[in-house]
Parts: sequence; C-alpha cells; structure tokens
Amino acid sequence: MYSKKIESILKRNKIKIGDRILLKQDKKHFEGLLMPQYGDPDTIVLKLDNGYNIGLKFSGTITKSKHSTPREVKKEEKYELGRVSKDLLKLKFDPKKPPISIISTGGTISSRIDYKTGAVTGLEDPREFLHNVPELSKIVNVRRLDKPFTKMSEDMDHKDWIKIAENVARNLNAGDKGVIVTHGTDALHFTAAALSFFLKNLSKPVVLVGAQRSTDRGSSDAGMNLLCAAHACLSDIAEVGICMHGSINDDYCLFNRGTKVRKMDTQRRDAFRPINEKPLALVFPNGKIIKENTYKKRTDKKVELDTKFEPRVAIIKSHPMADPSVIDYYVSKGYRGFVLETMGLGHVPTNGKYSWIATIKKHVKKGIPFVSATGTIYGRINPNVYSNLRKLYQESGAISLGDMTVETAFVKLGWILGHTKDFDKVKEMMLTNYAGEMTSRTLPETFLY
Amino acid sequence: MYSKKIESILKRNKIKIGDRILLKQDKKHFEGLLMPQYGDPDTIVLKLDNGYNIGLKFSGTITKSKHSTPREVKKEEKYELGRVSKDLLKLKFDPKKPPISIISTGGTISSRIDYKTGAVTGLEDPREFLHNVPELSKIVNVRRLDKPFTKMSEDMDHKDWIKIAENVARNLNAGDKGVIVTHGTDALHFTAAALSFFLKNLSKPVVLVGAQRSTDRGSSDAGMNLLCAAHACLSDIAEVGICMHGSINDDYCLFNRGTKVRKMDTQRRDAFRPINEKPLALVFPNGKIIKENTYKKRTDKKVELDTKFEPRVAIIKSHPMADPSVIDYYVSKGYRGFVLETMGLGHVPTNGKYSWIATIKKHVKKGIPFVSATGTIYGRINPNVYSNLRKLYQESGAISLGDMTVETAFVKLGWILGHTKDFDKVKEMMLTNYAGEMTSRTLPETFLY
Repeated sequence: MYSKKIESILKRNKIKIGDRILLKQDKKHFEGLLMPQYGDPDTIVLKLDNGYNIGLKFSGTITKSKHSTPREVKKEEKYELGRVSKDLLKLKFDPKKPPISIISTGGTISSRIDYKTGAVTGLEDPREFLHNVPELSKIVNVRRLDKPFTKMSEDMDHKDWIKIAENVARNLNAGDKGVIVTHGTDALHFTAAALSFFLKNLSKPVVLVGAQRSTDRGSSDAGMNLLCAAHACLSDIAEVGICMHGSINDDYCLFNRGTKVRKMDTQRRDAFRPINEKPLALVFPNGKIIKENTYKKRTDKKVELDTKFEPRVAIIKSHPMADPSVIDYYVSKGYRGFVLETMGLGHVPTNGKYSWIATIKKHVKKGIPFVSATGTIYGRINPNVYSNLRKLYQESGAISLGDMTVETAFVKLGWILGHTKDFDKVKEMMLTNYAGEMTSRTLPETFLY
Repeated sequence: MYSKKIESILKRNKIKIGDRILLKQDKKHFEGLLMPQYGDPDTIVLKLDNGYNIGLKFSGTITKSKHSTPREVKKEEKYELGRVSKDLLKLKFDPKKPPISIISTGGTISSRIDYKTGAVTGLEDPREFLHNVPELSKIVNVRRLDKPFTKMSEDMDHKDWIKIAENVARNLNAGDKGVIVTHGTDALHFTAAALSFFLKNLSKPVVLVGAQRSTDRGSSDAGMNLLCAAHACLSDIAEVGICMHGSINDDYCLFNRGTKVRKMDTQRRDAFRPINEKPLALVFPNGKIIKENTYKKRTDKKVELDTKFEPRVAIIKSHPMADPSVIDYYVSKGYRGFVLETMGLGHVPTNGKYSWIATIKKHVKKGIPFVSATGTIYGRINPNVYSNLRKLYQESGAISLGDMTVETAFVKLGWILGHTKDFDKVKEMMLTNYAGEMTSRTLPETFLY
C-alpha cells in the first residue's frame, strides 16, 4: 500500500495498480504503468515504456493518462497479463530436433512481470521460451524445463550452485545434447566458475545465458542470446561457458569459458568479456561458429558431480591503508581460507603501519591458505620481481595464482577446501588447472578484449 | 647473509655479491648478477640480463660465469654502480626553458639498483633524469627535485599523499609551469585521486608518471613517459592526471584524469586506462597533443591545499555469500564510512541468509555513510531498476555514486569525512563533482578504451 496521501489521490482519480498514469512534479512529466508500492510508501513506482521501472518520491500530481499504451508495449502486456495464454499452449517444439533442456534460475532473462500485481515470476513452461524466441524450434527440441528456484544472481549461494549442477548433470546424462542455464547477470560468472569445478568429466556444452535488458524492452538481448546459446549447446565444445552478446549490435555472441569471464559493464549488452584469453568461440544467430581458442571436445562420457564446498572463504581487497586486522576477525569467525585481491603485480601493503605481512605469515603458519589474484583484472601476478612481492609470497607463504580471476579464485578455493583442509594439498590443488582457469601465456590481443 | 651452505660455496669459488654467476640446477642454467640475500636464506637472488630479479631455492651448483656481462647491461651498470658520476654532474638543464619541478616518491621509474649492495634508492639529483632522458633539456628546465620520501606505492598512506600535495602546491605557487610526480604504479591511481581533491583552485598541470619496466631494461617505458609528462606539464590542461604509454608501442602516451583512471594490467606498458570517459589528451613524444575530452584550463590562480582526511574508511566487496557482519566489525573499530564495491548495476546480497540490507540500514540510521560504486569497473549504477536495488538505495539509504570508480570513491569519502561527519552534508558532498570524478553520460566508445 502507498501512503495514505497517495492512496487517497489514487482513489479520487479512480486509478488502480496497472493503470497508465501521468505524474507531474518538479516541472517534469512521467508517463507509465503504475506499479504496486515497494519500499518507501511515499515513492511512486512507474513502469516506463522503455521497460524500466522508476521510483519517484511523490511531490506532484497524478492523473490517468490520456494516451493509450503504445502498440508494442500493449502487445507484450497482453502476454504478460494473461500469464500462460491458450495461444501459447498451442506452440510446440519439434521432437525430431536434437534434445536440450533449459534450467531457469531467475534474473532478467526469464522474468515476466505481471503488471497487475508487479510480481516478477520465472517462466513456467518451455513453450514460453518459444513464444519469446520462435526460431528456437528450428534448432532444438527443448525437452524439459527445470526451475530449481527463482532468484536474482546476487542472492545465490553455493547451495544454489549445487542445485543447478545436479540438474545439469541429470539432464546431460539423460541424453541431452547440451544444457542451457538461464540466470541473472550480476553474479553469473561466479555460478559459471562453480559449475566448471562441480561438473567432473564434462562431456557436453553447458551454456549459461542472461540478459542485460528485460524481454519487454525493444532493445532486449534475451532472444539473440538464447538463440546463440542453443547453437552453442549443439557444438562440440564440452565446456561450461557464458554465451551473450559480443558487441552492442545484434551480430554475434561470445561463448566465453566459465572460469575466464567477467561482467565488465553494468548495462551494456556486450558486458561479458573474456579475461586473459580469447573467447572459446564467436556464435552467430544463424548457427555459424568461429572457434577462437582451445577447448575440451564433446565425448560420450557420463558427467559426474563433485560439489563439496566450504563457504567460509573471504575475499580481502588490498589497497593503500587497508587494515589487515580484518583477517584476524574472519579467522575468529571460523573462516578457512582467503583470496587476496592484490594490487598490480600482486602487492599488499608491506612496510609501515598498515603492513599485512605479519598477519598473513601468522595464519599461514597455522595452515590457513592465502591465495592471490590481481585486482587489475588483466595480467598475471609475478611473485618474484620486487622485494615487497618476495616478502608476501616467499617469506609469508601466500600462493600466487598467476592469471586467475579473483572471482574464479574464490569459487575454486571454496571448492578445494570442501575436499581438504591440508595446506600442502590445498596449495597443490590451487595450482592444478582443472577447468582452464589458468593459462601459461597471455596473448597481447586479449587485453581489454 | 645467505645460508651457511651457500656462503661457503660462494667463498670457495671466490664469488662476491654483484659478480656474474652461473647457477645450474634442475637441468636448467641461470646466468646473472648475484644479488644480496633477501627473504629465505636458501634462495639465491639473481639479476637476469632482462633486468628482472629471480629467486631460486638453491639445490644445484654455483660458479663464476665465464661470459662477460653483455654490453648493454655493462653500460647501465657503470652508471648504477658509480652512483652520481662526475660525468653526470656535467649535465645541465637549460635555464631559458620553462621551469618545472619533479617530485620523486619512489617506485620503478625513479629507482636505481646498486648491484653491489642490492639497495634500491631514489634518484638524488634532477640531472639523473637528464642522464636517462637527455631530450628533457630541450623541453623544460627542471629547476628542482623534491624527494619527500621513497616508497613503493602500495606502502603509501594519506600522510604521504598530503606530503606530495604540499610539495606540488609550493612548487606551482613558486612559478613552475607544471609539476611532474614520479611514483610507483600499483597504487598510483589512489594518489592521483587524492591530489585531485587535495589541490584546490588547481591552475596548472600536475602530471603523475610511473614506469612498468625498470630503467635498466631495454623495453623500459620510463623515458618516453617522462618526456610526454614534460610536454603535458607545459599544456593548458590544469588537471591532476596520469601520463603513461597509450599503446604497447612507443608511439604516444595517454594523459588521463586523476579521478577517472585505473591500472588495468599487471605488466603492460599501456596498463593505465581511462574509466567511463575518454582520456584528457594523447601526448606524443615530439610534443604534439591531441585533446580528447573537456578539461579545466590553465590560469594564474594560486593553488590552495585542502588535505583534511579521515583514514577510517573501508571498502567492502560485494559478492555471493559475502558476510555483512564484517561491517559491524569495522564500525566497532571506529570506522566512519564505507565504500560498497557492488555487483553489476549496484547489487549486494539482498535476500536470504547473507542479506546485507539490515546491517547497512542499521548503521545508516546511526549516521554512517555507505557509498556504492560498481565492481564491474565500467558503467554506472542505476539505483532504481530492480527491487533489490530499491531495497539498498531507497529503503536502507546507501548512496549510489553513478559512474565513479571504487578507488576514487574511497579517497573521496576519506577526504569528505575529514571535513564533516554530518550524514546529509557527506551525502551532498559525495554527489558534488569536485574533480571530474562523475560524468552525466557515458560515451559508448569509452568501454574497454
């Protein structure tokens, strides 16, 4: 419920949730669908025609809009408002096409908004994907849709990652050519890294896909991303990867390895970029695939699950004046390992009042691993160049991870600590390449790819 | 001192520190100058001909090298070993050229290594820069060299930033056309942001410059960076900026605004990239300058200092399963403000076991500011799009900083909290653009520039 003041204005003007309204305040006009109250009861939430919601602290006037809803918005609304419509249920996937499955976990790509209630729900029937992307039926037979949960990616934890992995393994072993996982984007690369370690003997493509713009916006990337993901599912690339726009045009997607990819922009459709290597492939909506990297090839092996995970791992960001005592705090709370997001070539504050060296050394001696990945994003750590580096890596025992990303290091350390707490074994496993997470050489053209 | 075992081998073979040796172990040969023991006494440190040091856990044989030092290494050594040589003292800057000063703070660019002792010291005389970059005398008169301290950048704190600012202001107000600050690279963008806020009414260029490769390597970028920095000093761009290689070739430097720049690679010479805007200018070694952005123009105003700073500010990295109780820990230690490095469009874990919302809300209510900058590096936060965002920004009172970088947000919040602890005033100041740290619109071509 909105505040009493707003509710009385709405009542007076016979405005209901879902109506198209005109809000005037601060010499500006805002037009859109009135959404249900959320958060502050004095803030009006409007769904604009571009698909975005906007929240405005109310200080003006509200009237019913004299304009009708633009045609393209109407069209989408009809579907959204009607939930799974009868027309939709007539849609069919072609059973002769290669079977895949979709695991829908939430996020922008698989959300639909009910304009009458404002509720965001996940898609409920594989045919809804077909409604959004009719071309899918010409490529694949989506034999099954699983919805283990519906969450924004920032709210997920390792138990969710495990649920996704279990669904993926079951479907692949049931004969699917590949699996698509639809997912929110903000923490998508964490899940991608987790699946990369959780799925042992992976023999088929596991393609994670999200959308930066919701499906009710004209500029949505959901459709093309799904289409490219379906093509990637049928390829011979037996890797976990993220398949999303490669440029701001609707020309091709990048299929990036799950352990070497990162969301590099808040909103751009081409936000997911490969880090320190080239993409596995460019995937075009027409099915053309250009391989750009080495990869694991498709086989007939059964996929196994290896999902033991220790969540008590902290990422500690290294920067000038950062306080190392926070490490003691985490240890006192039972944390079992640390990822240092280090500066430049692998630095932490080393000399003077803020030095981290004694703290790290003390905990390493007790068998707690500290692994280091660089905060520059690109490049690799060199633990030998400067004396400050030698103090951290040689004297104190921190473990340099070369060109691994911080996010992948976090997931990998949690996964390894799920298997062993023995320091030497942890070190050995951290430096073992399980899923392409480390490369031995960086190609110059991969910088800011 | 190396371990007894190593020392006795050295003695037997009449090898002294600084000698060229051959180390054989693990079927490999390593040749280079023997450096003094550092860290582990069983680890031999060698200076290789490429300028890099290497540390090797000793398990083989050491003999004097039969080869002489390669010519180009010898040449540099002569200077390094001789400290400030008599020849050097004959060098002179041209007093008719425009006066600038250099503030040398440490780091790779201004280091010289004494091969006999292994000590790294800062340059001591402006003429040493002239020795390294003779072309400088044709452009500027380096009237003065200040060396307030010699530190690697990761070891600096706000007191060091203040010392640099004091030196800069004094020299600019004494009539210098501009000031060059030589500096380590790993935390260079923190110092650049600090000077941007500390120097009020800035009327002349303040050019920070570092080197990714040390001056004793053939591929060093120190010379060209200094040359371009000198040209930038004479320009009409009255901003604090970082001037370093713009590409991996020796063709031009980028002069990037001090508040919108970040080290994006561990080792590349073109690691410093503009974030969410274009560089201020391209600067060519021959003095050509191509302006790429708006900037503050040179005037005759006196520069003022405004260096009040509160160091009790923490950066909290948001990621799945991150524990919000660390915020309570920092508050209990007296921390006065927080920078949230958020996921994607500005997210923290919002629902479920790991939710940060209650913790942030509780501390905001007590007047502690939480400001949010995105961990994607590129793009801007939109606090309205998703309901999870509205919980953080509208319901809990976190402050979205748009397209500001995390590093600049950290420095700016420390600077503002040095002036006031009043929540509303802090919020107002955080959202005021003091030194180009926020832009209103992102040009598409600035992504991964």
